[in-house]
Amino acid sequence: MRIAIYPGSFDPITNGHLDILERTAAIFDKVYVVLLENPQKKTFFSLDERMDLIRTSVAGLSNVEVASFEGLVVNCAKHFGAQVLIRGLRAVTDFEYELQMAAINKTLDNEVETFFLMTNAEFSFLSSSLVKEVAYFGGEVKKLVPAHVKAALTAKMSERRATE
Amino acid sequence: MRIAIYPGSFDPITNGHLDILERTAAIFDKVYVVLLENPQKKTFFSLDERMDLIRTSVAGLSNVEVASFEGLVVNCAKHFGAQVLIRGLRAVTDFEYELQMAAINKTLDNEVETFFLMTNAEFSFLSSSLVKEVAYFGGEVKKLVPAHVKAALTAKMSERRATE
Amino acid sequence: MRIAIYPGSFDPITNGHLDILERTAAIFDKVYVVLLENPQKKTFFSLDERMDLIRTSVAGLSNVEVASFEGLVVNCAKHFGAQVLIRGLRAVTDFEYELQMAAINKTLDNEVETFFLMTNAEFSFLSSSLVKEVAYFGGEVKKLVPAHVKAALTAKMSERRATE
Amino acid sequence: MRIAIYPGSFDPITNGHLDILERTAAIFDKVYVVLLENPQKKTFFSLDERMDLIRTSVAGLSNVEVASFEGLVVNCAKHFGAQVLIRGLRAVTDFEYELQMAAINKTLDNEVETFFLMTNAEFSFLSSSLVKEVAYFGGEVKKLVPAHVKAALTAKMSERRATE
Amino acid sequence: MRIAIYPGSFDPITNGHLDILERTAAIFDKVYVVLLENPQKKTFFSLDERMDLIRTSVAGLSNVEVASFEGLVVNCAKHFGAQVLIRGLRAVTDFEYELQMAAINKTLDNEVETFFLMTNAEFSFLSSSLVKEVAYFGGEVKKLVPAHVKAALTAKMSERRATE
Amino acid sequence: MRIAIYPGSFDPITNGHLDILERTAAIFDKVYVVLLENPQKKTFFSLDERMDLIRTSVAGLSNVEVASFEGLVVNCAKHFGAQVLIRGLRAVTDFEYELQMAAINKTLDNEVETFFLMTNAEFSFLSSSLVKEVAYFGGEVKKLVPAHVKAALTAKMSERRATE
Repeated sequence: MRIAIYPGSFDPITNGHLDILERTAAIFDKVYVVLLENPQKKTFFSLDERMDLIRTSVAGLSNVEVASFEGLVVNCAKHFGAQVLIRGLRAVTDFEYELQMAAINKTLDNEVETFFLMTNAEFSFLSSSLVKEVAYFGGEVKKLVPAHVKAALTAKMSERRATE
Repeated sequence: MRIAIYPGSFDPITNGHLDILERTAAIFDKVYVVLLENPQKKTFFSLDERMDLIRTSVAGLSNVEVASFEGLVVNCAKHFGAQVLIRGLRAVTDFEYELQMAAINKTLDNEVETFFLMTNAEFSFLSSSLVKEVAYFGGEVKKLVPAHVKAALTAKMSERRATE
Repeated sequence: MRIAIYPGSFDPITNGHLDILERTAAIFDKVYVVLLENPQKKTFFSLDERMDLIRTSVAGLSNVEVASFEGLVVNCAKHFGAQVLIRGLRAVTDFEYELQMAAINKTLDNEVETFFLMTNAEFSFLSSSLVKEVAYFGGEVKKLVPAHVKAALTAKMSERRATE
Repeated sequence: MRIAIYPGSFDPITNGHLDILERTAAIFDKVYVVLLENPQKKTFFSLDERMDLIRTSVAGLSNVEVASFEGLVVNCAKHFGAQVLIRGLRAVTDFEYELQMAAINKTLDNEVETFFLMTNAEFSFLSSSLVKEVAYFGGEVKKLVPAHVKAALTAKMSERRATE
Repeated sequence: MRIAIYPGSFDPITNGHLDILERTAAIFDKVYVVLLENPQKKTFFSLDERMDLIRTSVAGLSNVEVASFEGLVVNCAKHFGAQVLIRGLRAVTDFEYELQMAAINKTLDNEVETFFLMTNAEFSFLSSSLVKEVAYFGGEVKKLVPAHVKAALTAKMSERRATE
Repeated sequence: MRIAIYPGSFDPITNGHLDILERTAAIFDKVYVVLLENPQKKTFFSLDERMDLIRTSVAGLSNVEVASFEGLVVNCAKHFGAQVLIRGLRAVTDFEYELQMAAINKTLDNEVETFFLMTNAEFSFLSSSLVKEVAYFGGEVKKLVPAHVKAALTAKMSERRATE
């Protein structure tokens, strides 16, 4: 069985992430979307909120499962029995960081392979940070994230603004 | 009437920004230098200080006006009746970020056009952050910023150092 | 009057070029699409063919004119009375080359300004060379170039193949 | 069955190519190394020579087959029943070119997926052109290509030099 | 006498830094590894700890001395009587930042020259931040840093975890 | 004695090359500017012409000598007793190519070290090819090359044009 993990912080999941996921799910028997927990980093949505947003987004993909993990990404792959790590590439700065991570992961565990997919042109500018920035200033995000993510963003942003 | 906005945080304005501004002012009927307010980001100079530093710098350019705006840059363009957004490009990392922003702005509002100018070679290394770093360690900034900005930097730095 | 030139070899013109042209034509009073003649470089289409393909493509843009020029691009701008040179940016490698050209043009003539537009995401991969490569191997180019350019490519390719 | 193609000109195959191939063969059921024939491009080794050099190199990989193809890479994938196209990434310039090709291939055929692998750090500088340049000037290539490729290079180079 | 400084934050020193140091020490009469103190930046190891870790690492290099400095890097070079500033380059993002710094240093003091060395391929992915991230999640760092640095990392990490 | 080589094709030498040379000559005891002969590549100026143009350019630098070499650059360093290879870096595309060359040279001969200098901002756009292109179209090159190189370019260009 070919198993892949697609790790990230997904704060929140975007249409760009979903595009990578759908394309990966068409090739592998099983894909785990894994939320990497990092106690050192603050997120906008909580771990549970982010997992729920992903779950709703991938409801139509029967071989995709949502999970979370704290630790090195190579140990995460081992934990889920995955041979392959999936990463999306949008731009040169992504590329350099990912090249570093793939190299260090190779040093840490030679058996896990990283496969990269290029984000489709229409999503190449998209990141979770940009989505949050647009939402913060009241911009329209409906082309950038699924409808339920837009709703969650709007709700959370008005909550935040209320307490600022 | 051809109207352009030149948005940024200008903390503080540098000779590189002024070069872009002068070249833009020669082409458009009216240019608004717009300080984008972002309550989430701390700045070295206050909004009023930054506006004053810009105003003194552009005193000789009759079709340039200084303003501030809180919100999305595309709404800022609309607000000032501008068809064009001006951005300076110095390096590849700028380029990637700006490409992302231009794409997302296109998605948010298809009527505002982003025009890029390459920063002249002699200013290609210059950024507000570098200017502050040099000033912090007592380096000479007279080739990097106008004289009144240098004076403001020196004054503020000694203030800061006094309270450290 | 604000006049811009949009120089290139346009061998042939693509949907990416047309996108830049339309966006430029909306901002300037007059735009000259200028075919730069370079006797040292071989082209697939002849100068006349390339001019005809552009003319048909821009028929709907009343303030756009097609021309040709042999010489330095800054002299070309002077010749057409243009204050601005328009260039499209697709990728980092474009960026570096264009940065060089903008710098050398500035050295040669300080009065001509280069404005860059980012190619829209959907055309960011598109170049005349890629179009010719796809057409050479019988691939479908209808999303990449206007219909009359596709027809010209197909005709010329079969001509070429017949004599190989 | 998961089938991948690994297309290229392999003029000649290097240790960098072999590293990508071995890692791909561990994940897919079948991998076709496909020599893309391009009548417009001159090669150092003939098509037959290049296929022989690859065959000897992959003798130990039972699920790898060597083939050739003339045409678009997406048609090549179809021809071999492959869902996936494998490409190695070494550097930023590779990245940009590959991003373009992945985008155009997506436009030509939405069903073929491109997966990228980062070339291992020790081979990141390696290309067929560099190997030929080193061999041309009598440099040692034993760390760069398999022994039988080194022998073929040496033989062909002395042949060439004899006729210069 | 040819004197070089190799400035940085070394938080902690890695095998990549040591590779640069050894190669520099073979060319210059004297090399100062200089810890740049920046009160604005928090570090993982204290200044004294970082200096000790470097001292142990360079024990075998007789013409290398460890020092610290607060101020501009060009003044640091002057202070140690150095004609040359040594910097390692790993990737494009390094390159752009270093290009900026070299330019600004040239503006501040035209007599200090910056020489760059490319980090060897096997260390091209390595940075102090990555080392700390790997150590944080309990990954193996023995190929990334000298043994005594590994020991210090492990000790400090368990200290940190105890107080989280 | 610290000896460096500065290899290249110098077709022709530009103010950018001279800037690198002067800065290198201030640090090393002896610098050899080495014209790498490559029978596979056509040049605009002959080997003798290029050597003469360099000799006149470096007449004021007493520790700089002009030479030529056919073969690998690492053997060239050995031949001249040099410990160091000097290369100028202008842009990201340079960087990637040079990174590859430094890595392959390290593989071929571990004892020769490559040092890079960043080309000063005012020359960052300058290359021998651009100089020839400007001269070809009758542009002014006096800020780009020394006076005697300008004269040689003009003479050779009119010769060429006469026989076209």
